[in-house]
Amino acid sequence: MAAQDAEGRIVPEARPRDAGDRESLDVWGFRDSAFTVRENGNVFVTGSRYPISGLELPELWPWMRRVLAVELPVADTHDSQYPPEIPPARSNPGFRREAQQILADGAWSEDPELRLRHGHGHTVEEMYLLKYARIERVPDLVVYPESEAQVASLVAAATRHDVCLVPYGGGTNVTDALRCPPDEERSIVAVDLSRMDRILWIDPVNLMACIEAGAVGRNLQAQLAEHGFTLGHEPDSVEFSTLGGWIATYASGMKKNRYGNIEDLVLDVSVVTALGTVSRSSSGPRESVGLDPRRWLFGSEGTLGIITSAVVKIFPQPEVQHYDAVLFPSFEAGVGFLFDLTREARPPASVRLVDNLQFQLSQTLKPKASGARALKRRLEKLLVTRVRGFDPERMVACTLVYEGSVAEVRDQQHAVARLARRHGGMRAGADNGRRGYQLTFGIAYLRDFVMRHWILGESFETSVPWTRVLALCDNVKRRLAAECAARGVPGRPFVTARVTQVYQTGVCVYFYFGFYHKGLEQPVELYAELERCARDEILRSGGSLSHHHGVGKLRRGFLPRIFSPAALAWSSEVKRAVDPGNLFGIANQLLGAESAGRPAG
Amino acid sequence: MAAQDAEGRIVPEARPRDAGDRESLDVWGFRDSAFTVRENGNVFVTGSRYPISGLELPELWPWMRRVLAVELPVADTHDSQYPPEIPPARSNPGFRREAQQILADGAWSEDPELRLRHGHGHTVEEMYLLKYARIERVPDLVVYPESEAQVASLVAAATRHDVCLVPYGGGTNVTDALRCPPDEERSIVAVDLSRMDRILWIDPVNLMACIEAGAVGRNLQAQLAEHGFTLGHEPDSVEFSTLGGWIATYASGMKKNRYGNIEDLVLDVSVVTALGTVSRSSSGPRESVGLDPRRWLFGSEGTLGIITSAVVKIFPQPEVQHYDAVLFPSFEAGVGFLFDLTREARPPASVRLVDNLQFQLSQTLKPKASGARALKRRLEKLLVTRVRGFDPERMVACTLVYEGSVAEVRDQQHAVARLARRHGGMRAGADNGRRGYQLTFGIAYLRDFVMRHWILGESFETSVPWTRVLALCDNVKRRLAAECAARGVPGRPFVTARVTQVYQTGVCVYFYFGFYHKGLEQPVELYAELERCARDEILRSGGSLSHHHGVGKLRRGFLPRIFSPAALAWSSEVKRAVDPGNLFGIANQLLGAESAGRPAG
Repeated sequence: MAAQDAEGRIVPEARPRDAGDRESLDVWGFRDSAFTVRENGNVFVTGSRYPISGLELPELWPWMRRVLAVELPVADTHDSQYPPEIPPARSNPGFRREAQQILADGAWSEDPELRLRHGHGHTVEEMYLLKYARIERVPDLVVYPESEAQVASLVAAATRHDVCLVPYGGGTNVTDALRCPPDEERSIVAVDLSRMDRILWIDPVNLMACIEAGAVGRNLQAQLAEHGFTLGHEPDSVEFSTLGGWIATYASGMKKNRYGNIEDLVLDVSVVTALGTVSRSSSGPRESVGLDPRRWLFGSEGTLGIITSAVVKIFPQPEVQHYDAVLFPSFEAGVGFLFDLTREARPPASVRLVDNLQFQLSQTLKPKASGARALKRRLEKLLVTRVRGFDPERMVACTLVYEGSVAEVRDQQHAVARLARRHGGMRAGADNGRRGYQLTFGIAYLRDFVMRHWILGESFETSVPWTRVLALCDNVKRRLAAECAARGVPGRPFVTARVTQVYQTGVCVYFYFGFYHKGLEQPVELYAELERCARDEILRSGGSLSHHHGVGKLRRGFLPRIFSPAALAWSSEVKRAVDPGNLFGIANQLLGAESAGRPAG
Repeated sequence: MAAQDAEGRIVPEARPRDAGDRESLDVWGFRDSAFTVRENGNVFVTGSRYPISGLELPELWPWMRRVLAVELPVADTHDSQYPPEIPPARSNPGFRREAQQILADGAWSEDPELRLRHGHGHTVEEMYLLKYARIERVPDLVVYPESEAQVASLVAAATRHDVCLVPYGGGTNVTDALRCPPDEERSIVAVDLSRMDRILWIDPVNLMACIEAGAVGRNLQAQLAEHGFTLGHEPDSVEFSTLGGWIATYASGMKKNRYGNIEDLVLDVSVVTALGTVSRSSSGPRESVGLDPRRWLFGSEGTLGIITSAVVKIFPQPEVQHYDAVLFPSFEAGVGFLFDLTREARPPASVRLVDNLQFQLSQTLKPKASGARALKRRLEKLLVTRVRGFDPERMVACTLVYEGSVAEVRDQQHAVARLARRHGGMRAGADNGRRGYQLTFGIAYLRDFVMRHWILGESFETSVPWTRVLALCDNVKRRLAAECAARGVPGRPFVTARVTQVYQTGVCVYFYFGFYHKGLEQPVELYAELERCARDEILRSGGSLSHHHGVGKLRRGFLPRIFSPAALAWSSEVKRAVDPGNLFGIANQLLGAESAGRPAG
């Protein structure tokens, strides 16, 4: 179903929104999917959406007990009290009246749970408060514009009525970017872009598409695929996050080796700001047109305006896609392999290397095998550990996704085989590779599962030059262990790292960190403190503040460590100049908040 | 000669500046190189620097006569009156005194010709005024800082003494970017970065280098090559332009298919601004750290601060480099070949396609052949025109540079051979390919040569999606012919196009335009008017304002056609916010000038 416009571009029909894909308000992901543990200690995954859905996993719970070195009684749950007490809406009747005229019928809500949902992302602290405490300040109204014109009218009305606007995409950030400043006295209005999710046009010859900012990754990929194209941008949150959110946070996709990161993919951005709509009359392949406000929206995290659409590069669907996995005897060997891969070959679309602990975790996410399958698994294990001599407590796995022409992929496969051999690698096959990638989406549900069992855990990431990768990983693990011990954290913390992106200059390292907190006071404050310790260690070890998660409010305290005072002053002055009333008052980074050094507005 | 720092990085010794490489003040390029025409009509190229140096070219002059359809008497010269009257320096004694304390001995100058040189780039109008009229306003003082600390002190002193600062790199812009606002009443100080040209460190493992902004392309490439590396950035001006200038103008290099454009190469920028020094504590492979002022310096064209150094990606020297050339029966066929190359292969490091007129020009830049060489040339011509049936008035040439591993280059060569066949192409060999590229540097000297013979000519460029390439080239040629005819321009204008860059989404088209102006009144005004007609036609045809030359003052009148009012307001407000006193008052784009809508400062 698609029309053509005067320039021969495809104009896809708007797709009905899928009512089956309902998302949870209180935990990560879709409502139909969750981990639970049975009385016998077997973990069960509900639903049918993911490869692990419907499976009973006997090994996970015992493994968690062992790794965390705590007893972890199955029945001892920390039950969610969701919904928490939700602060009453501070209505701005003048704005509300105007908004209702601007918007379609029913395209707004004051429902407390919806307001709450628009006031947080997915940091540990937010999810904890949601279940066991309360979030102090949340949006007072949620609006659902359907066009850029409606957004522009809302912005004009907000200016007139002194309302604070917060753009809302997928709500998947892990940086407290959606947390409302507690002292915000204006009415806070979340501008939810979920109804602006259309692909406006696809140019099949020049390989561009214009897409509304609220388009969610999974839908936009599916719709482009119907026409034979892909954007190639697949962050781990691709099921829920949006094009606008990717731009606002400098997102990175798993397959960036082939398709690039978000800044490489976006040719043009339209954005409604306090000064009006920043847009262009056309977008070219590449330009030198002086200062370019479109580019400044990258990393703006909701503080400068509402991104409404973008022109992006698209790619024909690859001829072939192959998965693969390679086992290495150690993390060091795996990193050596990745390094050589960037030096001597074109890395496949995606290459990821998990450390031993994460490799173990992935092994526990297999169902109980019996008969021939169990035998096969046992033989494989024997081959790896006895014949090849891999130490189960040291070995690691690298998963790969190849995309491209038959010839490109074949060349890459040859290079991978050659370099894997050099580093003592052993092919583990396409099935394990596919499984490794698919686990990404399932694993995201673990955070809320373990939280019910007194475990707080989340991810954080960094980028770091090659020469410092190993030391950085070691330092962070050692530092967290020491800090946890010093604070009397029960058992052992869980700290694991994976390399998720490779560059010529270095890599992205992605950590999971968790600990059992029963008996500890103020566990989320402790988690935040420990995460700051980890970040301190990362910066000391030559890592960056963030590779793709961004800054939000969670990491803004570190900004003075990485930017000179003048660099921070530039950002603050720019914010003041283009949003003098602090209309977009979500106060991420050091922008528009009192913490920026002087009052905003 | 290189030390190592504590992190194992190479710290190259500062190189003595080469006294033999003296540049002209009044024309493009090195003093040792120029075109002249002898009484017999043979053109001679002086010096020994370029492949065409020392050669006598019998065909160029007759060809010019034919193409321009004017008589062009050899002896009828329009002799340069250089140096023109140079406005006296408006000294700011307070600043001068401080500057002398800040700077090394002799690191400043009030010499009129040097001041003049720092007040222009290389637009036709500037070069014409230099020789035949005068430039109204030029810098009053030239300073040569040797470190970022000195730049910071100069900026502080300039603020105290109300002086206008203009960063100066290679002086090669073609956008009037260095033209001083005639009504600037403050003392104007050119900050010449030529003494800040060191490579501060090379990280051979992480493939990064930190380089001062005044480093000139040819030197920095040579110095990196001594250590086995390349930056891979080769704009046509690489002999003279600087790293800082590349960043400030969004430069593009010929070999961007392999190495990327300047925005792809730069990991970090240090810049001294009115608010202080914008810098970072470290630079990572890729980051998401919120608003990032470093990125805003791209395209700033001297209006926001003085770029002092950058951390860039570097690459090991390629295993192999090969040149090649392919002839096609028509420009259409050549564009078809390029399109398929982006779709079905990885384009070689550089691919360029000249149209028929430019192909003819390149043929006239060959010396008189005799004996076996003449025979060979005649036979080649016969083969092309008689056997293959190529029309000498339609055929075009594509030149290619391959760089990479033996395998990569071999694959690319196979793809080129296959796709060239598909589009009726005929290999013309490595020699012709190499010659085509090397001509780039020699051809730059033609502008001043023909200016002495009453011909005004320069280049302009754009980027455009694939589907509009052919129409855009035709439209511009037709429009210029019509506009010249309507204005009584003698003979025929010279308009020629080449595709210099390919992207998945489109190409960069580079035009040369020239005409004989003897007898016309106000020829440079006419040139500017005609160039504006061409730009209007480019924008109507779906092209961009610029692919890599930038905006400066030459094209700023078109900014409201491509940016929404709010986008322009953003840029103006940002300029005002970070440079409230308009310290960097060179007034490019619509920044800091009265033309920006309201007075600056």
